[in-house]
Amino acid sequence: RIDAPRLWSTLSMMAQIGGTPAGGVTRLALSEEDRIARNLLRDWALEAGFTCDVDSMGNMFIRRAGKHRALPPVMTGSHVDSQPLGGNYDGIYGVLTGLEVLRTLNDNSVETERDIVLVNWTNEEGARFAPAMLASGVWSGQFSEEYALARADNAGVTVGEALDAIGYRGTLPARAFPVHACYELHIEQGPILEDEAIDIGLVRAAMGQRWFTLTIDGFAAHAGTTPMHSRRDALTAFAELALMVEEIGYQHQPDGRATIGMAQITPNSRNVVPSRVVCSVEFRHPQSEVLEAMEIALREAAEGLSTRGVMANVERIFDYAPIVFDDACLARSEKAVKALGYSSKPMVSGAGHDTCYISKIAPASMIFIPCEKGISHNEAENILPEWSEKGANVLLHSVLSAALE
Amino acid sequence: RIDAPRLWSTLSMMAQIGGTPAGGVTRLALSEEDRIARNLLRDWALEAGFTCDVDSMGNMFIRRAGKHRALPPVMTGSHVDSQPLGGNYDGIYGVLTGLEVLRTLNDNSVETERDIVLVNWTNEEGARFAPAMLASGVWSGQFSEEYALARADNAGVTVGEALDAIGYRGTLPARAFPVHACYELHIEQGPILEDEAIDIGLVRAAMGQRWFTLTIDGFAAHAGTTPMHSRRDALTAFAELALMVEEIGYQHQPDGRATIGMAQITPNSRNVVPSRVVCSVEFRHPQSEVLEAMEIALREAAEGLSTRGVMANVERIFDYAPIVFDDACLARSEKAVKALGYSSKPMVSGAGHDTCYISKIAPASMIFIPCEKGISHNEAENILPEWSEKGANVLLHSVLSAALE
Ligand SMILES: NC(=O)NCCC(=O)O
Ligand SMILES: NC(=O)NCCC(=O)O
Repeated sequence: RIDAPRLWSTLSMMAQIGGTPAGGVTRLALSEEDRIARNLLRDWALEAGFTCDVDSMGNMFIRRAGKHRALPPVMTGSHVDSQPLGGNYDGIYGVLTGLEVLRTLNDNSVETERDIVLVNWTNEEGARFAPAMLASGVWSGQFSEEYALARADNAGVTVGEALDAIGYRGTLPARAFPVHACYELHIEQGPILEDEAIDIGLVRAAMGQRWFTLTIDGFAAHAGTTPMHSRRDALTAFAELALMVEEIGYQHQPDGRATIGMAQITPNSRNVVPSRVVCSVEFRHPQSEVLEAMEIALREAAEGLSTRGVMANVERIFDYAPIVFDDACLARSEKAVKALGYSSKPMVSGAGHDTCYISKIAPASMIFIPCEKGISHNEAENILPEWSEKGANVLLHSVLSAALE
Repeated sequence: RIDAPRLWSTLSMMAQIGGTPAGGVTRLALSEEDRIARNLLRDWALEAGFTCDVDSMGNMFIRRAGKHRALPPVMTGSHVDSQPLGGNYDGIYGVLTGLEVLRTLNDNSVETERDIVLVNWTNEEGARFAPAMLASGVWSGQFSEEYALARADNAGVTVGEALDAIGYRGTLPARAFPVHACYELHIEQGPILEDEAIDIGLVRAAMGQRWFTLTIDGFAAHAGTTPMHSRRDALTAFAELALMVEEIGYQHQPDGRATIGMAQITPNSRNVVPSRVVCSVEFRHPQSEVLEAMEIALREAAEGLSTRGVMANVERIFDYAPIVFDDACLARSEKAVKALGYSSKPMVSGAGHDTCYISKIAPASMIFIPCEKGISHNEAENILPEWSEKGANVLLHSVLSAALE
């Protein structure tokens, strides 16, 4: 069993880094807050006698040695970065429960056959740098490193520059090594487990995602002198598109998701008819065919804006296929749940996770715990200590049984 | 007659300050670019032997002495500030033609009965600090100075701080003195004069304006895990509102204008359902009753958003009544047009101008020249040298005839 009070206090300490007045956290990837959080994680790891190596994407690999270094290790990992005005558990809960698992094995002087590697993956959220899961994507061979290092934030700073700025461009190559099994423990970020009073979600699949950047070009005009009918207003065109995107989501219920989270208006002045809107669009669904239909509908909607005298350009920047997790990995977690006397149910993740990418190169699965009202990507994100403890125990036994093989 | 090549080269020199790659200008009120432009204007004035005083709102008063200092002076003025990615003529054309008028009077050793005062009014555009015409509003008693100095830009910098930062918080009180007549020469910012091949617009009235700040509060949620029907999405609510605002404009054709120029999304991350949108709304119309109806429709639209689970707050930040200019002032300009052999027509301004506020405390009117395709608040804003020259000659004779009275 893990040490629940220690885990809780570790989580609380970490929540200070980037903490917001409303009790959430803003710890954007490769920001100063991320640097401080990474340093703290590394110090905790070294204090406990583990090693910590960093690869060229800034991914951190904390390793507890087993008997046979030559055997592929067991991996667990998640991310330290957060959304702007995000919550205290998304990602960091998986990292710090991983640390708690390693500490617990130390406390009990458990010797494993295989090494256990705890990973902090860089830029999981996709908030500062799009797309999400960028560095686990590179590590697992989904993106080239060159592409990833050149991704820029809204201020034009690239991933490469940001890695250098916080001193986390490491020397290990960002390339997968053989992994025996990989587990990620995460909050559900949805309401199902809490609603049904179930302790543990055994995640068997994850939805696919497609992300787009849309640029709508109209023509800047004076708000006072330009009659309504002679405007080429990028903002009202954007508004029409936003409602069509929402409608695309509604057309593919219950599983479809369609979201515009980001928009930037030019010149963004009260008395100027906007010349340009750049926005994000993202779709999610468990089936690739539906994602394809959603994309087609988006492209049609964007073309239709030409009746407003504006030009819309649709660029797909992320195509994240639906994935299915490994049965053998899930079986270990299911066994752990039973042994611990917890309740569980199989689930599909609506969120993307680093371990989805890891599942492309190694057997992998995920474990969910409830989170209050399903609130996530929000400062109000919350979990209860008993939920936290149960999840960590399932992670401990899943990882341990794989590491003893 | 004014010196047309000198006027054109003065305009060109000024266009360098804040010049953009696309040939426009970004010279936001009280920015570094504004400071440099103000210094240049002051240097030109002092070189020509005029005085230059600055009031506590940063308004600059350049004075050419007449015979009788005790008589109320004739005033002409406009503004040096621009929109972000704005044009080379909006405002600055009125200031530099005013300078050209004073220089021409020097060249011809004309002695006037009254002083002539050329004013650069601070923050006419309302782009960096809302509302527009802020400092002519204070000077003419429409806003308190305390209110105006506390207006903040999007970064939280107040007008008072920005005045200090560029060294333009002057010592004159920002309070009207008696004025015999006031003229402002400006580009039309609309297409009528060019379309009808008319040299000069004699502006007899200006539309009223109402500006609002809307805050739409929803609830941040995960874009992947939050089903469409359980979202409280501030952005899609904003989109619905934007189309309703546009519709309000269409309902009051041909004169009505309804514009959303500015919007800011929180947290503005691709995979977060937005929690908040803050946006501007502005309406224009020549009749106050119609503006009132537009405002009522806006408030109803905003309330209707509650069906989406969001709360919309509507704050009116600017109520600029329609105004009518002075007949005697217009008559001088009409006489000048005839004497010079130009064509003219009476017009209503869709844009607000500092001289609308001055008209509340002194006889005032405005003179328009064409601008290409009516394009304004756009880097592509353009005028022809012959248009520029004609406008300046009408200003010269309007101001001169008043100053000889
Ligand atoms: N788990 C999580 O919130 N990941 C961020 C990427 C996504 O939006 O799915
Ligand atoms: N003339 C001009 O563009 N003034 C700015 C205020 C307005 O939008 O009417």
